[in-house]
Amino acid sequence: MLTKYNAIVGQSGGPTAAINATLAGIIHGCQTSNKIQTLYGMKNGIEGLLKEDIIELCDTNLEMLCHTPAAYLGSCRFKLPDSPYERAYAKILAILRYYNIRYFFYIGGNNSMDTVAKLSHYAQQVQYPLHVIGVPKTIDNDLLGTDHTPGYGSAAKYVAVTTQEIIRDCAVYTQPAVTMIEIMGRDAGWLTAASAVGRIINSVEPDYVYLPERIFSVNEFVKDIKAALQRHPNVVVALSEGLRTTDGYLSQTTRMDQFGHQQLSGAGKAMETLLRYNINCKTRVIELNVPQRCSAHIASQTDLDESFQIGLEAVQAAIARKTGVMMSFERIPSDTYGCKITCHNIHDIANQVKYVPESFINAQGNHVTEECCKYILPLIQGEAYPAYQNGLPQFMI
Amino acid sequence: MLTKYNAIVGQSGGPTAAINATLAGIIHGCQTSNKIQTLYGMKNGIEGLLKEDIIELCDTNLEMLCHTPAAYLGSCRFKLPDSPYERAYAKILAILRYYNIRYFFYIGGNNSMDTVAKLSHYAQQVQYPLHVIGVPKTIDNDLLGTDHTPGYGSAAKYVAVTTQEIIRDCAVYTQPAVTMIEIMGRDAGWLTAASAVGRIINSVEPDYVYLPERIFSVNEFVKDIKAALQRHPNVVVALSEGLRTTDGYLSQTTRMDQFGHQQLSGAGKAMETLLRYNINCKTRVIELNVPQRCSAHIASQTDLDESFQIGLEAVQAAIARKTGVMMSFERIPSDTYGCKITCHNIHDIANQVKYVPESFINAQGNHVTEECCKYILPLIQGEAYPAYQNGLPQFMI
Repeated sequence: MLTKYNAIVGQSGGPTAAINATLAGIIHGCQTSNKIQTLYGMKNGIEGLLKEDIIELCDTNLEMLCHTPAAYLGSCRFKLPDSPYERAYAKILAILRYYNIRYFFYIGGNNSMDTVAKLSHYAQQVQYPLHVIGVPKTIDNDLLGTDHTPGYGSAAKYVAVTTQEIIRDCAVYTQPAVTMIEIMGRDAGWLTAASAVGRIINSVEPDYVYLPERIFSVNEFVKDIKAALQRHPNVVVALSEGLRTTDGYLSQTTRMDQFGHQQLSGAGKAMETLLRYNINCKTRVIELNVPQRCSAHIASQTDLDESFQIGLEAVQAAIARKTGVMMSFERIPSDTYGCKITCHNIHDIANQVKYVPESFINAQGNHVTEECCKYILPLIQGEAYPAYQNGLPQFMI
Repeated sequence: MLTKYNAIVGQSGGPTAAINATLAGIIHGCQTSNKIQTLYGMKNGIEGLLKEDIIELCDTNLEMLCHTPAAYLGSCRFKLPDSPYERAYAKILAILRYYNIRYFFYIGGNNSMDTVAKLSHYAQQVQYPLHVIGVPKTIDNDLLGTDHTPGYGSAAKYVAVTTQEIIRDCAVYTQPAVTMIEIMGRDAGWLTAASAVGRIINSVEPDYVYLPERIFSVNEFVKDIKAALQRHPNVVVALSEGLRTTDGYLSQTTRMDQFGHQQLSGAGKAMETLLRYNINCKTRVIELNVPQRCSAHIASQTDLDESFQIGLEAVQAAIARKTGVMMSFERIPSDTYGCKITCHNIHDIANQVKYVPESFINAQGNHVTEECCKYILPLIQGEAYPAYQNGLPQFMI
């Protein structure tokens, strides 16, 4: 007779439209495994585990869960201490022992992979047979060791679709105007790049795309805009929230509010101010903001499918006695898109950032290349519509 | 043999996700009428007509047009002069005569109905047999003489769906936080009210909803937020960009548009500042911005169907020799939703605002009533998804 052990899963970091699809994949993997007895969920990630705030995950509507945005189990931004002698580790170990947990799944971004690295290392040190598997998730797509991250495709699709709509909206008037679309991504410009994918589909794309990988030049920007206004009246610019000049982040530019207090403004607002002093035309800033990461109503089917699959295969990896790894996608070189799922040593990945490569950005640093669009294109394929009830999407509460 | 005349159509004011469905309805109506020879389109509304910038509308993909956001013919914010002796009128008349145009359709909001009123009046004065029909369009839903406006349902659906997603996004952390969703609507709170429709569908709605119909009280707002934070950590507030205190607009009012209206930006930012000085917790502002009016990817099917139909019936009204009227919806009193399309004298409508009625706002002025939700609910029914090609929606260019 097989000895069965229990498993636990947590979610961490910023929400995405696909993180619950990965959770659904892990639930399905555990339910169908003959090695796993019960799957627990930690509420609010490792923070909840430390408080023993855990639930049993059973009889969940996996289809609805896949389409539900944000993090069903709640999230946290808690980082485990560096020293394994800190009390947190002993506490976690005691809880894992008590619940007979041998499989540990953690879905998250950069900081969450740090947790996977530390916990797997600690378990090995104390010789507790724990299989700790990190499953990536971030709209930022900035994790090393994987072709792309679950969650990125859906956010990229939202950005790409919304940019198409905004460009049409901007085109209706004849007066010169500059519209700036501010897109998430503090250090890496992956999501901002997705605004340009129309280039290889229907030739509709922003006039310029500025990524944080290149130092932003105010002079070049003003020159770019003047040149575009010569060509047509409705200039549309996509820009990353993380743009910086040699002096630091653009968004750190301050302005005064009506009470005379200084207010931090976004990169787009800073660029609008720049234009107001350099070019006399109508300007507008559209911050895509939180809807970028939670718009489940227009998720990428490819992203949801892959996010489910990587969760499923995380369970298989744990059962195959892997630990201290992050599940990752490896793109298969071919004319048609395909990825295989592999494991990557967590210590090569945690606490690092994957930037948009040089070859994806044009020489002037004001747009992305066709190679970049071709990389993004397969990730936004398919429309994963949730079920609707009475006009609203049906999500897990 | 029937004598056939030509027709012309223009679009004006801010774009919506449904204004092209009305255009499609008018095109279809003219194509199938035995009274109309050729349908012309004025580029950029009356402004284009004055420059004789007009095109023939034929062989258009009506299905794709229905799903295309913004204004296919371009728009303008041009208002006809008050005096009929101004040159603009004589010029328009000469162009209409030259093109043998007897039917004039103008799709737009408040300012556009002013154009319909003036032009129909002028044509009657000079005894030119012109049939001028206004077809309403505004996401603001603030036109008198109609149960609701085409374009409102789709914008309301976007607001309602996005609010559902944002509420889930906000729920993932345990730290107290206040999220403010800023929604379009300078004078009327119709669109902001749509954020609350979840109440009668799934009980998920913002904690508070503030409309511009009620004077905003800073003290009451701070009290509301403090009370909500006692109940749960993730407080979500929907607010109209047009909120004002007894001292005027809450937002900084720096610019005027060409009609002398103050241009608003940042009621949410102003409220964030208020909270920062009154309550010590994390705050966040999400301006839904332009995507509210151009998100064709999640348009309301009811809105698109009605918008097409009102265009079609505008043609029938013109052929029936109506002029100086706005097409309008009249809700049929019944347990199930239904509207009939009628004509309304334009002079009762132009340059006025329909506010959210008292009975739709609660006594405290910090939320909407169930009656309000019931009014909005049928207008957001059905998901009008555009066709996709390679991951992006297919729109007319």
